[in-house]
Amino acid sequence: MLGKVNHIAIAVPDLVQATAAYRDTLGARVSQSQALPEHGVTVVFVELPNTKVELLEPLGADSPIAAFLAKNPDGGMHHICYEVEDILDARDQLKAAGARVLGNGEPKIGAHGKPVLFLHPKDFFGTLIELEQL
Amino acid sequence: MLGKVNHIAIAVPDLVQATAAYRDTLGARVSQSQALPEHGVTVVFVELPNTKVELLEPLGADSPIAAFLAKNPDGGMHHICYEVEDILDARDQLKAAGARVLGNGEPKIGAHGKPVLFLHPKDFFGTLIELEQL
Repeated sequence: MLGKVNHIAIAVPDLVQATAAYRDTLGARVSQSQALPEHGVTVVFVELPNTKVELLEPLGADSPIAAFLAKNPDGGMHHICYEVEDILDARDQLKAAGARVLGNGEPKIGAHGKPVLFLHPKDFFGTLIELEQL
Repeated sequence: MLGKVNHIAIAVPDLVQATAAYRDTLGARVSQSQALPEHGVTVVFVELPNTKVELLEPLGADSPIAAFLAKNPDGGMHHICYEVEDILDARDQLKAAGARVLGNGEPKIGAHGKPVLFLHPKDFFGTLIELEQL
């Protein structure tokens, strides 16, 4: 079921500082920042040769990463996103295996404009997993 | 400086259960487990098309992931490893930029038999970064 690692998401308290660290200190190629108010984050893509890191800063009052940053004020790794061919098929297989899909179980349109689902981190050893249909 | 994401390391309290979840529930290809007593972990590789996830379970009394699991008993994302061409050159650039290298600053031979360094997570927004020379 799991395809490529689409991205590793890192929540940061200060996107300007984090972008500078990845660009200037680590010498990586970084994108312009993009505000995604409907997703409650501002994002910068760190473009590696085989995948991406996404630096996320909370945007707005209901950001989905606000609680994570309250618990981890320095920031930290927030989730891993894997590509899947068919997200409904993946969801049905996962539910049949006893895994919990967050929310109402229906895919939403994610930050890349593709259908996504999140899986409960308690079912995957503390790791929040996002699935994205390409 | 940063090359490919070599792996994403996930610390887990029970490697047998975690391997089963990635293999059976998530449908990923997983390796046999390998005990690496000199690194204080037992590891299973989850092989994705573009990179690897490494599931790590503590091994022995001085495991480097024991403190992380004491703080995160369910497990969680532990570090990201990036490939670099020249680890001494990378280290010198990082130190010149003010980043802290863990330990004595000299590369050690990592779990893949290659020279590695770890960077202080406080300098990278809560993310522990490993650099590995290919």
